[in-house]
Amino acid sequence: MNTFQKIGERLEDLGLNGLQILQNPDHFCFGIDAVLLAWYASGSVHYKTRTIDLGTGTGVIPLLLYGRTGTRHIDALEIQPEMADMAKRSVALNDLNATIHVTCGDLRHPGSAFHSSSYDVVVCNPPYMRTDRGKLNPRDNLAIARHEITCTLADVAGFAKTMLKDRGKLFLIQRADRLVDLATVLREHQLEIKRLRPVYPSPGKPANLLLIEAMKKGRPHAIIETPLMVYQSDGQYSREINAIYGTPGPQKK
Amino acid sequence: MNTFQKIGERLEDLGLNGLQILQNPDHFCFGIDAVLLAWYASGSVHYKTRTIDLGTGTGVIPLLLYGRTGTRHIDALEIQPEMADMAKRSVALNDLNATIHVTCGDLRHPGSAFHSSSYDVVVCNPPYMRTDRGKLNPRDNLAIARHEITCTLADVAGFAKTMLKDRGKLFLIQRADRLVDLATVLREHQLEIKRLRPVYPSPGKPANLLLIEAMKKGRPHAIIETPLMVYQSDGQYSREINAIYGTPGPQKK
Repeated sequence: MNTFQKIGERLEDLGLNGLQILQNPDHFCFGIDAVLLAWYASGSVHYKTRTIDLGTGTGVIPLLLYGRTGTRHIDALEIQPEMADMAKRSVALNDLNATIHVTCGDLRHPGSAFHSSSYDVVVCNPPYMRTDRGKLNPRDNLAIARHEITCTLADVAGFAKTMLKDRGKLFLIQRADRLVDLATVLREHQLEIKRLRPVYPSPGKPANLLLIEAMKKGRPHAIIETPLMVYQSDGQYSREINAIYGTPGPQKK
Repeated sequence: MNTFQKIGERLEDLGLNGLQILQNPDHFCFGIDAVLLAWYASGSVHYKTRTIDLGTGTGVIPLLLYGRTGTRHIDALEIQPEMADMAKRSVALNDLNATIHVTCGDLRHPGSAFHSSSYDVVVCNPPYMRTDRGKLNPRDNLAIARHEITCTLADVAGFAKTMLKDRGKLFLIQRADRLVDLATVLREHQLEIKRLRPVYPSPGKPANLLLIEAMKKGRPHAIIETPLMVYQSDGQYSREINAIYGTPGPQKK
């Protein structure tokens, strides 16, 4: 156990340039949605891009974005102190304190730590569940990560509208059944969906997730990209998913 | 040439129970979008369903809906007198005057011919182009069929909101790049997208069309269905498209 690791935590290899991340199986661990979102956003993140990840959790998206792009500035905001602390320690153990800046705070009240119209890219893997749907998980940090307790789509869109430069981009992953919520809330906040990639769990099933790229003050014109299939009918990961896990770059479809 | 046919018109076989339709190559002829929409809607059309087709053009959707379902009541509204006349003659030559009722009129001012909250199903293959986009075709009936000159998405949604029963369904086909317009306009009119099927021209290309089922006063929950591929990579119609052209029934995906 290294000096950054606490009891109960495990150290995972991200399979990307030797990057590692702390995870605690008792808390919320990152899943394929974070991997897909980091991959989807990485085509718009370059060396000088100013990026912020909202609700960063254990910091997986900033680490993956850095690993894919070598970008030099990512801010990360997390409302739960113990998660923010774990993310900070993961950043430190990868020696990335100069690149990834984790702040514990509430995106609904960002205060003076963040400057309006200063970001090129906002990334967010928001809670999927409306609080009026589904059973709330009694373990708080799971409930907060999964339900819109501390952050709704409108909160995310409001932050992005304020903090993005004009023509800056918001990247989201969200449950497919919330498509209309997404489209309406984003447009209400001057964020126009430019690309949408439906993610299908396997052939013959409806999409369960949507990858979204929206542009601040973009003109209305959405590209509905090719379906992204996670599993093939034989139960193996598709070739594209294997490529996402195994390679640094995204390809626009 | 039969008594229903005018000079310049040709009689096409719809490949469905011997149904035929008049088409004039100098006017707007129906395409695959009408065939897909009639197929998509037909799963919700039964013997007693009260259906109306907005902007029926040459009447292809009512004829296909009747052919697929045997339903006994379809109203059809068309703003262009010569198109409405052609649709009426196609209905007559198929001996369907008791089933399909074509009215020449403007859906923005439906008048007393239609009763509010009286329809189970509204179908519409609306113009795809906003009038601020693309060149307007100088031949009026083509321009009216393709551009939102006489009917915008909001006009269609307004008619559907008024004329549908609660939980009645609106079926649309629309260009994929107008997804956000669709989602926002429909929700503004209490029409909630319940199913969305993206239509891809061929593998590796973005979707060009969306098939939509929306429900009046439905709760927000959209199913993003499996991709509908038109052409295979070898340039042949996909098996599903062949099935749609060759069989009467739809399957929910």
